[in-house]
Amino acid sequence: MTDYYVLHSGGLDSTSALAVCQKMPDARNIIAIAVNYGQRHIAELAAAAQIIKKLGIKQYTLDLTGFGNSVTSALTTSNIEVPDGSYNPDNMAATVVPGRNAVFLSAAAGLASSKTTDGEEIIIVTATHGGDHELYPDCRPEFITAIDKALRLGSGAGVWAPFSDKTKAEIVQLGTEAGAPLELTWSCYKGGAYHCGTCATCMERREAFITANITDPTSYNP
Amino acid sequence: MTDYYVLHSGGLDSTSALAVCQKMPDARNIIAIAVNYGQRHIAELAAAAQIIKKLGIKQYTLDLTGFGNSVTSALTTSNIEVPDGSYNPDNMAATVVPGRNAVFLSAAAGLASSKTTDGEEIIIVTATHGGDHELYPDCRPEFITAIDKALRLGSGAGVWAPFSDKTKAEIVQLGTEAGAPLELTWSCYKGGAYHCGTCATCMERREAFITANITDPTSYNP
Repeated sequence: MTDYYVLHSGGLDSTSALAVCQKMPDARNIIAIAVNYGQRHIAELAAAAQIIKKLGIKQYTLDLTGFGNSVTSALTTSNIEVPDGSYNPDNMAATVVPGRNAVFLSAAAGLASSKTTDGEEIIIVTATHGGDHELYPDCRPEFITAIDKALRLGSGAGVWAPFSDKTKAEIVQLGTEAGAPLELTWSCYKGGAYHCGTCATCMERREAFITANITDPTSYNP
Repeated sequence: MTDYYVLHSGGLDSTSALAVCQKMPDARNIIAIAVNYGQRHIAELAAAAQIIKKLGIKQYTLDLTGFGNSVTSALTTSNIEVPDGSYNPDNMAATVVPGRNAVFLSAAAGLASSKTTDGEEIIIVTATHGGDHELYPDCRPEFITAIDKALRLGSGAGVWAPFSDKTKAEIVQLGTEAGAPLELTWSCYKGGAYHCGTCATCMERREAFITANITDPTSYNP
């Protein structure tokens, strides 16, 4: 049997991943890992707490704010505005956190190895998807394959990216089929009470539901 | 040319690695990265500060205390005593921090990628050595090869373990030849004013100087 540790941000993709893992025939435990790395959209973490409660899943929090501070201070990203408009690489280059996925996966593997100690298989799940590849090198399938090998050797935990070749619309479809509470998920990069509906991630979210032909449960700013 | 970012604890091995990198013909900058992960022997960090000052090397600090807390709390290592006696696997199993090297290397790659942004090569240097292999899977050459590949794909930084096939005595020899200030390094796992001389790392340190036939500059507890 397998313990699945899912890096869970409270967004559409990782919440769909939680639900998909719950359906895996070899699943013993599904555990969510919420990473706090000093990200702006702390609304995600609040959403994550609601989601794991609804799914009846245990959650660990991994505090990587020290790493976030080290890297963001280098880029002085605290002075960089999150851009409005479509999710294209030029527009979103400011949102790259160098090495983020490698650090999250490695730290999750360390955490998981210290929790699952009875020899059952450990898989760290990341919800990176096809749309991430161009901008983020550490979301590409060849990176996932390489870090899977490294972490299996270094800590005994494997890495799985179930949506590696999926579009956002396909993820919405798969998540909905698996019973993911997508109405509780949070995407917006700005921190209001409702999704703004105009930032790049909100636009991507809206389009995903439209393309998947699934009713969008999101409350956008009127 | 190459920027070498050396994971530097203030101990014998990583201080020798700093000096060895300074002698590399392709070296542009040598940068020390001190990791704070809530380790007990904070004396190491004080030693590290003295060493980089002496070598005229820039230092960044990477704060991974959040990761250290997540993992150590799982193992309740705060209640585990560091054992006296020789450095054999059974004795030292309590000192394993799961996934530590993968996290340190990944975080260092992220930091380095945000500092060296002009396209010059980036190498992350770890001073893991032959004696670490049995106990620590993430110090073995096959892990180093795999994480080098993963991090090159994910963040553009490579990984080098110059002492991968060396003994502690050979490191003392190489470090001394390269001009490493080994008299400033710290090994002891206990936190006194002098090296205790009896814990596993102190015994290993003593033996390394004896085997290398180099005068031991260490002040041990009388």
